Amino acid sequence: MTAVVNTGDDAEFYGLLVSPDVDIVLYTLAGLVDPDQGWGVREDSFHTLEMLGRYGQETWFRLGDRDLATHIYRTYLSRQGARPSEVAEALRRHLGVVVPIRPMSDQPVRTQVRTRDGWLAFQDYFVKRRAADEVLDIRLAGIEAAQPGPGVINALERAEVVVVCPSNPLVSIGTILAVPGVREALCQRTLPIVAVSPIVAGATIKGPADRMMRGLGMEVSAVGIAETYRDFLDVLVLDEQDRALRGRVEELGIRAVVADTIMRDAAAKAQLAGITLQAAGLR
Amino acid sequence: MTAVVNTGDDAEFYGLLVSPDVDIVLYTLAGLVDPDQGWGVREDSFHTLEMLGRYGQETWFRLGDRDLATHIYRTYLSRQGARPSEVAEALRRHLGVVVPIRPMSDQPVRTQVRTRDGWLAFQDYFVKRRAADEVLDIRLAGIEAAQPGPGVINALERAEVVVVCPSNPLVSIGTILAVPGVREALCQRTLPIVAVSPIVAGATIKGPADRMMRGLGMEVSAVGIAETYRDFLDVLVLDEQDRALRGRVEELGIRAVVADTIMRDAAAKAQLAGITLQAAGLR
Repeated sequence: MTAVVNTGDDAEFYGLLVSPDVDIVLYTLAGLVDPDQGWGVREDSFHTLEMLGRYGQETWFRLGDRDLATHIYRTYLSRQGARPSEVAEALRRHLGVVVPIRPMSDQPVRTQVRTRDGWLAFQDYFVKRRAADEVLDIRLAGIEAAQPGPGVINALERAEVVVVCPSNPLVSIGTILAVPGVREALCQRTLPIVAVSPIVAGATIKGPADRMMRGLGMEVSAVGIAETYRDFLDVLVLDEQDRALRGRVEELGIRAVVADTIMRDAAAKAQLAGITLQAAGLR
Repeated sequence: MTAVVNTGDDAEFYGLLVSPDVDIVLYTLAGLVDPDQGWGVREDSFHTLEMLGRYGQETWFRLGDRDLATHIYRTYLSRQGARPSEVAEALRRHLGVVVPIRPMSDQPVRTQVRTRDGWLAFQDYFVKRRAADEVLDIRLAGIEAAQPGPGVINALERAEVVVVCPSNPLVSIGTILAVPGVREALCQRTLPIVAVSPIVAGATIKGPADRMMRGLGMEVSAVGIAETYRDFLDVLVLDEQDRALRGRVEELGIRAVVADTIMRDAAAKAQLAGITLQAAGLR
């Protein structure tokens, strides 16, 4: 297993480099993630952040004390010349995670969102303003100069199955797909590619993907997801609540598999993973 | 009141700039200092440091979570071009400290200690190796190029009284005195300069000053202190236990004032401060 991870959400706070998606995957695989939030370290404290607040710094990006160690270490390694892929490798190794975590690119890509107040850095839109703005456009600064990170193309070419997780198709999956060479590698694959729809009954379980899709004129449904990925997708797992959309997905040349996709707990997650791999023909 | 502070102890951990003496003065004046240790923030936690340990980093320099905010903020300002004096000013202002804290110099000076194992960075000798080595020599790397920090000479020239605190005469006070122009400014003063002896009954209350002085062939007593400062010192406050040394101090042309110099609690500290100012003729 290899995790290919979005870095368009990366940001800098107080001079510290934060790579939220890499860290979510890292903490999750290390068993450290806060299970309620789905990000950050479980039972973390916020003493450093409170004190940074006393120094007049903004504290809307909730960096916990344990979490900050990751950003301090990342920044330390980066200033010594380590690339994001090398940092991710060091973090993973120290926390005993066996799954390689591959940042999509070692070059900086910054997702920006256009709202009625103009272009915003992704975390300004997403965390500071709580994704409340209508999204008029999205751009990925630096994407033209980005190359796939070490091991990314190899993993996408050789994996028995590629799973496109039920994540934001625009600013999480979309960013990875936009790195020159990534989408092409997926289109050239002959082995199966399966996605799990993040849209269930016309909405996301979590996050602003539904409103973003609507803002950009996309259909907010499993069909909208299938359309977005249709050039490379073989199978789409959609929720039981969207059973009626099966036919429309299959019209796009994508096999539709219906399942309970709501990951309420670890057992539900494991079951969905099993169904997804089975849908791809792996089991 | 102005505090002129040693920066020879400054060090870098995980890319973060730490200025221990500035921070001790800062936290003390802000009412945040850990009263038992005399450094760090009271009731601080060490979650970031523990996590840095998981990332394979050394954790012998005990940076607490709240304390780390200071170093993150210092490093952030420094990377934007702020000088140590500007950083100290920002820290002070945010914590509501009214006393200006003046780093001795904006140029980097690094105290190093020669032991049987060779030259060590100060914090390696002092914290990592717990000041256990015999001190054969001391050097201040960068001292020739150092200039007194903004406001330092002005404060030393104009203050109604200069108090040399009962601190290490070699690596705390000595470092400040070694900045070109500082000792000269003190020698040219006509207003009083009073020191409190850090050596009581042949030993320090705290820290390795006694062993350092011995290693360098100095007399470990209030007389040794008086000799070190004799070119500029007017008055030496020495402890009641050293009453017998009064005559030898006065032979050096320094007025000796005997007092209880052990700062057991806040009341004792206030009393000693009063006696010290009175000894200088201020009250």
